[in-house]
Formats: sequence, C-alpha cells, structure tokens
Amino acid sequence: MPLLTADAKGVFPIAPTPFLADGSVDNASIDSMMDFYATCSTGLTVLGQLGEAPKLDHAESLSIAERVIKRAGNLPVIVGVSAPGFASMRALTRDVMDLGAAGVMIAPPNTLRTDDQIVNYYRQAVEAIGADVPFVLQDYPLTFSVQMTPGVIRRIVNDLPSCVMLKHEDWPGLEKISTLRKFEQEGMRRISILCGNNGLFLDYEMQRGADGANTGYCFPDMLADVVNLSQAGKWDEAHDLFDAHLPLLRYEQQPGAGLAVRKYIMMRRGIIACDAQRRPAAPLSEKARAEVDNLLRRLAKRDPRAAAAIR
Amino acid sequence: MPLLTADAKGVFPIAPTPFLADGSVDNASIDSMMDFYATCSTGLTVLGQLGEAPKLDHAESLSIAERVIKRAGNLPVIVGVSAPGFASMRALTRDVMDLGAAGVMIAPPNTLRTDDQIVNYYRQAVEAIGADVPFVLQDYPLTFSVQMTPGVIRRIVNDLPSCVMLKHEDWPGLEKISTLRKFEQEGMRRISILCGNNGLFLDYEMQRGADGANTGYCFPDMLADVVNLSQAGKWDEAHDLFDAHLPLLRYEQQPGAGLAVRKYIMMRRGIIACDAQRRPAAPLSEKARAEVDNLLRRLAKRDPRAAAAIR
Amino acid sequence: MPLLTADAKGVFPIAPTPFLADGSVDNASIDSMMDFYATCSTGLTVLGQLGEAPKLDHAESLSIAERVIKRAGNLPVIVGVSAPGFASMRALTRDVMDLGAAGVMIAPPNTLRTDDQIVNYYRQAVEAIGADVPFVLQDYPLTFSVQMTPGVIRRIVNDLPSCVMLKHEDWPGLEKISTLRKFEQEGMRRISILCGNNGLFLDYEMQRGADGANTGYCFPDMLADVVNLSQAGKWDEAHDLFDAHLPLLRYEQQPGAGLAVRKYIMMRRGIIACDAQRRPAAPLSEKARAEVDNLLRRLAKRDPRAAAAIR
Amino acid sequence: MPLLTADAKGVFPIAPTPFLADGSVDNASIDSMMDFYATCSTGLTVLGQLGEAPKLDHAESLSIAERVIKRAGNLPVIVGVSAPGFASMRALTRDVMDLGAAGVMIAPPNTLRTDDQIVNYYRQAVEAIGADVPFVLQDYPLTFSVQMTPGVIRRIVNDLPSCVMLKHEDWPGLEKISTLRKFEQEGMRRISILCGNNGLFLDYEMQRGADGANTGYCFPDMLADVVNLSQAGKWDEAHDLFDAHLPLLRYEQQPGAGLAVRKYIMMRRGIIACDAQRRPAAPLSEKARAEVDNLLRRLAKRDPRAAAAIR
Repeated sequence: MPLLTADAKGVFPIAPTPFLADGSVDNASIDSMMDFYATCSTGLTVLGQLGEAPKLDHAESLSIAERVIKRAGNLPVIVGVSAPGFASMRALTRDVMDLGAAGVMIAPPNTLRTDDQIVNYYRQAVEAIGADVPFVLQDYPLTFSVQMTPGVIRRIVNDLPSCVMLKHEDWPGLEKISTLRKFEQEGMRRISILCGNNGLFLDYEMQRGADGANTGYCFPDMLADVVNLSQAGKWDEAHDLFDAHLPLLRYEQQPGAGLAVRKYIMMRRGIIACDAQRRPAAPLSEKARAEVDNLLRRLAKRDPRAAAAIR
Repeated sequence: MPLLTADAKGVFPIAPTPFLADGSVDNASIDSMMDFYATCSTGLTVLGQLGEAPKLDHAESLSIAERVIKRAGNLPVIVGVSAPGFASMRALTRDVMDLGAAGVMIAPPNTLRTDDQIVNYYRQAVEAIGADVPFVLQDYPLTFSVQMTPGVIRRIVNDLPSCVMLKHEDWPGLEKISTLRKFEQEGMRRISILCGNNGLFLDYEMQRGADGANTGYCFPDMLADVVNLSQAGKWDEAHDLFDAHLPLLRYEQQPGAGLAVRKYIMMRRGIIACDAQRRPAAPLSEKARAEVDNLLRRLAKRDPRAAAAIR
Repeated sequence: MPLLTADAKGVFPIAPTPFLADGSVDNASIDSMMDFYATCSTGLTVLGQLGEAPKLDHAESLSIAERVIKRAGNLPVIVGVSAPGFASMRALTRDVMDLGAAGVMIAPPNTLRTDDQIVNYYRQAVEAIGADVPFVLQDYPLTFSVQMTPGVIRRIVNDLPSCVMLKHEDWPGLEKISTLRKFEQEGMRRISILCGNNGLFLDYEMQRGADGANTGYCFPDMLADVVNLSQAGKWDEAHDLFDAHLPLLRYEQQPGAGLAVRKYIMMRRGIIACDAQRRPAAPLSEKARAEVDNLLRRLAKRDPRAAAAIR
Repeated sequence: MPLLTADAKGVFPIAPTPFLADGSVDNASIDSMMDFYATCSTGLTVLGQLGEAPKLDHAESLSIAERVIKRAGNLPVIVGVSAPGFASMRALTRDVMDLGAAGVMIAPPNTLRTDDQIVNYYRQAVEAIGADVPFVLQDYPLTFSVQMTPGVIRRIVNDLPSCVMLKHEDWPGLEKISTLRKFEQEGMRRISILCGNNGLFLDYEMQRGADGANTGYCFPDMLADVVNLSQAGKWDEAHDLFDAHLPLLRYEQQPGAGLAVRKYIMMRRGIIACDAQRRPAAPLSEKARAEVDNLLRRLAKRDPRAAAAIR
C-alpha cells in the first residue's frame, strides 16, 4: 500500500470497531463496513479513540489492523498509535507499517502545556517511530487539553517532514485553518488538513481551505458529498445537504454518548451487524434511542439514505 | 420586584452588555434591548460571563444592573455574582438585591474537584450571601471544569432551600435532566431547569423535562417559540423552527468567537446600536462576517425575523 | 514611597492578614507585624493569596493596604492585584498606587495555556494598569496550572519594561533560574528574582543566582539570614541554618494547611495576636498542632528564635 | 510467591529500571539492586512511573518483572499495571501474576473527576483483572489530578475486597491517614497504608498510623530505619535520622528531575552500575550534580551510609 502523503483529500472515516453482542470482534462486519467505505471514502483511520482502541489488547489491535488493511485495497489506512510511552508507540507503529498501513496518527498526551513541550513531544515521537513513517498530527484540545497555536503547528510541520496531515478538531477552528493556509503562502510546507469534530463545521471548513473530513459521522457518504460539492464550488447545494444532517450530526457529536448513536445508526443502515460496545460502555437509553429514531425520521424527508435506514 | 422562584419557566436571555465604539457603556442600547426582551422573555440574566462582566468595574456593574432592573418592570432579573472570594460575592449580592434583583447566579470556581468540595462551596456561598437570596446553580463543566453529578445537584438542592434554579449546560446533558426529574419523583424538591449552551439541544431538552432556556442566542424570540410550541406538545413544529436556526446557532455557540457573532446579529436586528466589545476582545474576521451574513441569508428563507435583519 | 525596581534584593515576606477571633481585621497586629518585618525584611507583599485576599471586600483591602503602606516607612510594599477581569485589576492598582504602593503582583489566570496566551495576557494587564506601574510576574505553576518557559518569561521581560521582578515558584525551578541568568548574559534585561514556594529550595536558589525570597515562612528572619550568609559566600553556614528549619518549613509548605501553621507560629512568636482565619478556613487539628509544637521544640535546640517562641 | 495482603508493613521501594549507557536493560544491576533491597525492604514495586515503565515495550516489561520476581525470593513484588485501557491492563496483570507477582498497582486515569467516576473506574478495573488479584490503590493527586476523598477510598475498600493497600501520596496527607484509620475503627476493613511522595512526611505519617513507605528515595535503608524506630516508639531517634536526610530527600523529590538524582546516588552507592535513563530523559546538569554531591557530603557527617557513597 502506498504511504500517506500531504496530497490526501476527501473523506477518511474514523472506523468504529464492530463487536458482537458477546464482546468479541465481529470480523464479518469489518468486511461489510470496509465494502461500504470503499463506496464513499478516499482512505480511513482505525484504532482511534472512537474505535474503542483502549479496549483492545495488542493482538486484537493487530488482527483488526491487518484485516482492515487487506480489505482496504488501494485505500490508505491510518492507524492510531497514541500510547503512554514511546516504546509501545514504536512497537505498534512497526507492526502496522509492516502490515501495510499508510501512516499513523499521534495525539498529544494531556500533560503537555508549553509550546516547546508540544514540539519536543512530536520530535521524540518521530525519533521513536522513524522519520520514514508518515504521521497525522491530531489537534483536539477539547479532549486532550493540549492547545496548539498555528505557530506550534508550523514549527512541527517545518521541523518534521514526516508530518503530512493535520486532523483538525480545534473548536473554534475556522480561523486556524485560514491562518495555516496563509502560513503556506508564506512558505510553510503544505499539508493535508482533514477535519474532525464529527464534521460539525465541515461546510465552512471547506470554504476556509480544508481538504476534507477525517471523522466518524454515521453518514460518511453525506460528508463525501459535501466535500465534493464544495470542491466543485456548489456551496449552496453543499449547505443544503449539510444542514439537513445537522440536527442528527449535532446529536451524534455528544462526547461519550456519541459512539452509541453512531453504531446504532450504522447498524440500522446495514453497515455493521450489531451496535454492541465493549465494556465499559455508555449504551443508549430508551429515550435516547427514541430521539435518534425521530432524528432519522425527520432526516428521511430530505435524504433518501436516511429513509433507507428506517425502512 | 418579586424574588426568583422554582416555578420559573420560559426564556431568560443572558443579556450582553452593549458598548459604544469607544468602549463606554451604551445606556440607550440597554433600554432598547430591554424593550425587545420584554416581547419574548419571562426574565433575564445580566453580568454573566458573556455579558463581559469581568471587563466592568464595580461601579459600572452596579449601574448596569440598576438600569436593567428598572427597565425590566415585572420581569425577574438574575445577576451573575461569581467571584474569586466570598467577600466580593456577598458585597455584589447585597448591592444588587437592594436594587431589586430577583436572585443571583453562582458558578463554581474551577479548582473544585470532589463531590464534597462542590457541595461545601455552595454551602459557604449561601452563608456568605444569605439564605434569603434565591440563587441559580450554574452547571457548565465545559467552561468551569467542574463536574457535578446528578447526586451532587440533589445534595445541593436538598441542603440549600435558596437554590431555586439550575442553569443546565452540561454536555452531554439530556440524561442528566431525565435523572433530575426522576429524583424529583422520588422526593427531591422541584427546581426550575433552564438550559444554556446556546440552546444547542433545546428541542430535546424540552422533551426531557426542561422548563425553558437561559442562554444568549441572538434570536431569543425563536427560543421562546420553541419553548411555547414544546409546552403545547407541538413537537414537530418546534423541531422545524429549531432546525432552521441550528446552522446559525451552532456557529454562534463557538467558545470565544460566539459573542462577536451574537452582538453583530443583535446589531443587525436593531436590538443594540453597536457590536463593539471591550478589550480584550476577539472581533469577527472579514471571513467570519461573510459566513454569518450567509447564515442569515439562508435562515431568512425560513424565518422572517432573519429576513428583517438583513434588509 | 519609591517605586519597585529590578534591583530589589533580600526578603519580601508575603504578609498574612491578621484577624481577631470574630473575623474582623486586627489592626493592632498589622502594626506589630510591620514592626517585626522592619527588623528583617527589605520590602513586603500584601493581599497575596496567602493573605486571604479573596475573603476581603474592596474597602477592607484598601484599608489594609493603606495601613501597611503607612507603617512600612521606606520599605517598598507590593500589592497583589490578580483579578478575574482587567477592570477590577486596574481599579485596585490605581487605588493602591495612589496610597503609595511600590508596585503590584499579577498571577496568571489558570485558563492560559499557550505561550502566546501568556504573553498577551501580561501585555493586556500592563495596558490595563498602566505602563508606569512596576509589576511582579508570579510564576507558580503548581497553583495556577500555567507553565511559563524561560523563553516566555524573556518575551515578557523584553516586551514589558514595567516587569521588574519575578516571583519564582516553579517546581522544580533551579535550572530555570540558571537559564534566566544566562539569558541576561545574552542580553535580556536584568530583573530581580525572589523565590517563593515557602523557600523550600532557597539555599540552592541563592547559589543559582536568586536575589532573595518573597514568601511567607513564619521565620522570615531566618530567610533573611540565609540570604545574607549566601550573599557573603558563607554557604555552609547558610545551609546549616536552613537545614535546621527545613523540617518545619516543609511542614508549613503544605497547600491549604500551611496558612494555619504560619499564623499559629507567628502568634506564638508574638508577631500577631491571634491565629484566626476568616471562613472558609482549614484550621489546625489537635494532632497537627501537637506536630507543630514538636517541630518547634526540636528547632529550638538549634535556633534561639524558636526557643523564644515556645517559652 | 504469596499474594499481597492488607498486613503489609515496612518499606516497599519503587524500583528504578537500570539501563546501560546504550539504553539496554542492565540485568546485572537488576540483580545487585535486588540483593540490596533484600537487606532493608519487606517487598517492592516495579514498573511504576519512576521505573520508566512507559519507555519499555511489553516484552521488556515482562522480562524485567520475571527477573525481579525470581530474584526477590520471598519478598512480595507489586507490578504497576496502569494502562490507558482495561484490555492491556488485564493482559499485563495476567502475565505478571503468572510469573509470580504478589499483586498490582493501579493509578487512576487523569480524566476522572467525580466521586462516582473514581469508584466506577476501580470496579471496572477489578472486573478486568479479576477479583482474585490483590491491588494497590494509588492516590497521587499531584501527578494524576484525581482527588479521592477519604469517603471515596472507603467506598472502594468496602466494595472491592481485593483492594489491600493504599499508596498514599496525597499532599497534604496527614489528616487523610488519620481519617482513614478512624474509618477503620468505625467498621471499614483495615488496609495497609504505605506512603509515597518520596517519604517527605514519613516521620509524621508513621505517627498518624501509616504502615511504612512505598517510595523510591535513594536510601530505602534509611526509610526502613525510620519505620522501625517509629514502630518501636523511638520517635526522637526517628526524627533525628529523618531530619538528617531531609535536605537530600527534598532535593530528590523534585518532579521530573528527581529520577536522575536517585539513579546517580544509587550508582554512587554501588547499587546499580550506571545512572543512564532511556530517552526522553532529563539528565542532571553540571550544577545539579555538584549540588547533589554537596548534599551527600553534608549528609555524610550524620549518616555513615552517605559517607560510604562518596568515598
């Protein structure tokens, strides 16, 4: 599989890990999910936080990465390798790169505070995994409590050629994209910017210069349409489609609760067989499930994909 | 003015503080804003964080509170009195209650961690301000980093009879409302639950048992409609109206950046004369302003109030 | 009174606020405390966090500052003016500078994260209080959760000429002093570095280039001796004296509990009349008081000042 | 090897991981270190944070645990198994228990806030590792930002019989020990309380009811003497010895910098061959090394073990 490059565009879904009701990994659903992603995505990310990676042991993680990579064909697969220490980060990176991963994603540990601490952390991470492994810089202050200024990102991009992509999920984040694109005009190496945060601002992020999305919303095919419409300059159509999904998208974006919504809808869409999470998990309450059903019903009036899900 | 009670319902906007371009308080706009609120709200809150309270000195704060309270007529006015020490909290509380405030709002200092620390803090606060002053418990973990479980809120409500309202802005927060309403069925004293967080989940919060909104979205009249439609059981109409506003509401809800959006639109709506913030402030960039204009234009197709704003 | 300058040396105690048992301010003890400080200090700081400043209302704060400044004679008095907003910081600064304060101390709000946020905060603070008011930069990550690299301190010193002193209480902090002194050799403007953290590392901090102490340990006269011995190059004598106090000093340095120890010993030394704290307070338990008595008894064998305290 | 029980007493050093200058694990030094511990300790802990556990990959961790456990003979060995997910915690626990570990130590992830979150985390951890594996509850708010009240510890002890020891490193922490011992008199199951925090308050912690120390200070033999003297009621002798070490102990307790001090002195004492740390590491500066040498020289006048180290 080719390595990830700074030219990456489109939608890289954050893949959930499908489990059966008994908590075992559901390999058949990995396959069906991959077949679905092949229809709408230009790559994907596995073993991210929303892939329930911390609930997998090392052998399971490798086995999932392997199955995903094989089934992905030409789609580049990014593997989350964030770890409490560089030794396990290096070990996991080597294993998945050997299996054919296109690159890795690294989140900052939430103890980092100063600009220098952040930059040094990524230097050390690259030293650990090897400068030949392309990596995605994850900028998600809401979860990690680490705040990277555009200037810090520029230092990382300039110092570390293997940084090829930014998973942008700062909030607010629109001005950050504009600033980074301005930095590029002033000489910073260009990197791919794919947006996370469940895509809550994807419509305007595309207008600010993002290259696409790297997030787990249960309709990645909608995100792909928004990216494509935006790249074609059809802004109003992009907004119309995006706005129709916004009520559900907002609902799915709730921290903690969101994964249950996502898996439930992916199950109803037939993408995976079962919406089980491994323990510890926060399942949908009855009221929440009724709310999601209502959101789908309302969405079905405006997007036939949602209509299909509730038939 | 009557004191705030646990029966409060409807929409209590968080009022911004209008400034002139030179940074002085714009008293005429306070009056016009109050006249507007009188058309759609059942009360209001001043000197909250989004009222730029930390940029006001003590004399200015009092003068604003006084003007607002006088103009409010029968509308109950809640004053934010969160302070680094109980001495200034007490002093401000006494001053505003003498002026006719209906109650005060108290946010927890962000150093609180354990359940006991939180409960003790509110006990001490009540000791400081007096048990005869109704207070609003502000539950906003995203900003204050203080996490109150439903059990902690129950302890506060049961221990402190002057706690009459919860400003609910946990995220996610729907299950919390359901749990608190269940607690009430099991014997907890009933309190008013008004929702903050810019109303991002107001549609479903009403279904979970909230009594209304206590937030600063630039169309409080829309929030009032959603509350009224919900209370009348017209859920679909409530969703239709709410969903039309969601793209803008989400945009305004961005931390830090949101206040500029809010003031800009309130200016365009003619509610205040000028969208200036006191320094330090994060003004709207040109791109952001264009985005807001676009959001208004799109909203105008579905809500005539937005159409009026851009004429 | 002359303004604070970057030449400040020696010991600037952080003065507690003496209260009577009924919680009122004990003016007579302010006077006796000031007379004691005159025998061993080269300046002092009032209304710091350990001066129970948040428990004082504005009028009380001013009245204490006024009394202290008058009684201080030629000793420069620094006033803590940290506040949640620049408006109250400015108001308090103007008031105390008019009363004759030598400068103010400003701690960073604990929401600051990035290097730029920290530097901008101090720029805005200087804009608020006026560039003619000398200020002390308080660097206390343990309490404020704000981490300033030496590089950030250099930016502040270089950008803001009114920054004349660093209250150094990073932990660990020895290398930081060395780095800052190296920066000065490389062209950074020289500032005074006085050490806080109860002086826990004062012996070695002096060897790294500190100018003295700015902390509240109950034997400031011991700190003054250590500073003087160090400046005379009598390192072993400095260590001998310091080490004798270390068991008690460590005990007093406990967060939260330390102020009760400090006031209790200052009372036993006759410096203040009563060890009462205003509520909310953490008083000494019986066991803790016995431990402090034991620490004093043991210290009395090596320092006659402790012997005097327990007679 | 027998399992860890709530009767554990004495000193359980936190063992560092000895490395050679090239970064490889120094097995010979593991053996010599173990032989040294056999002379003064009643157990030990490996793969804690100060054992540089995050810099070891899984195979290395297991190999070190195995070597330590074999060489430990009858000394119970506790293994740190804190991990970002329960799957890896379970895997490591099973592996080391199979090798003969006496129990495991679990620190709380720094995202926990409310009392319930903390209790639930430990319930889930026990579910993951098995209720038959004795575990040590690590209470270290300074590093983990998780604050456990005595009441939360009581809930954990009462709910989870496999919790047999508290690694007590709250700061301040003396009252906490007293409260927990009082809880036991009121019916809480008795657990072993061993103190961490480099033993900074060990002298008084023993008087409050602690059973010993579980920390990494470079003179564990001194800690053992203090524990033994305390248990014999020879409080003054305990204080005399402890106070002699306090200047060095305080120096070694510096976060981040302390491990370099510890390894350097253990090397000078002949316990390990080399003071190298794996990258990323904070080595001793020249000035710091001179300070440590000076501290040892001064200590040598009062403790022959320090004299031996500098010969």
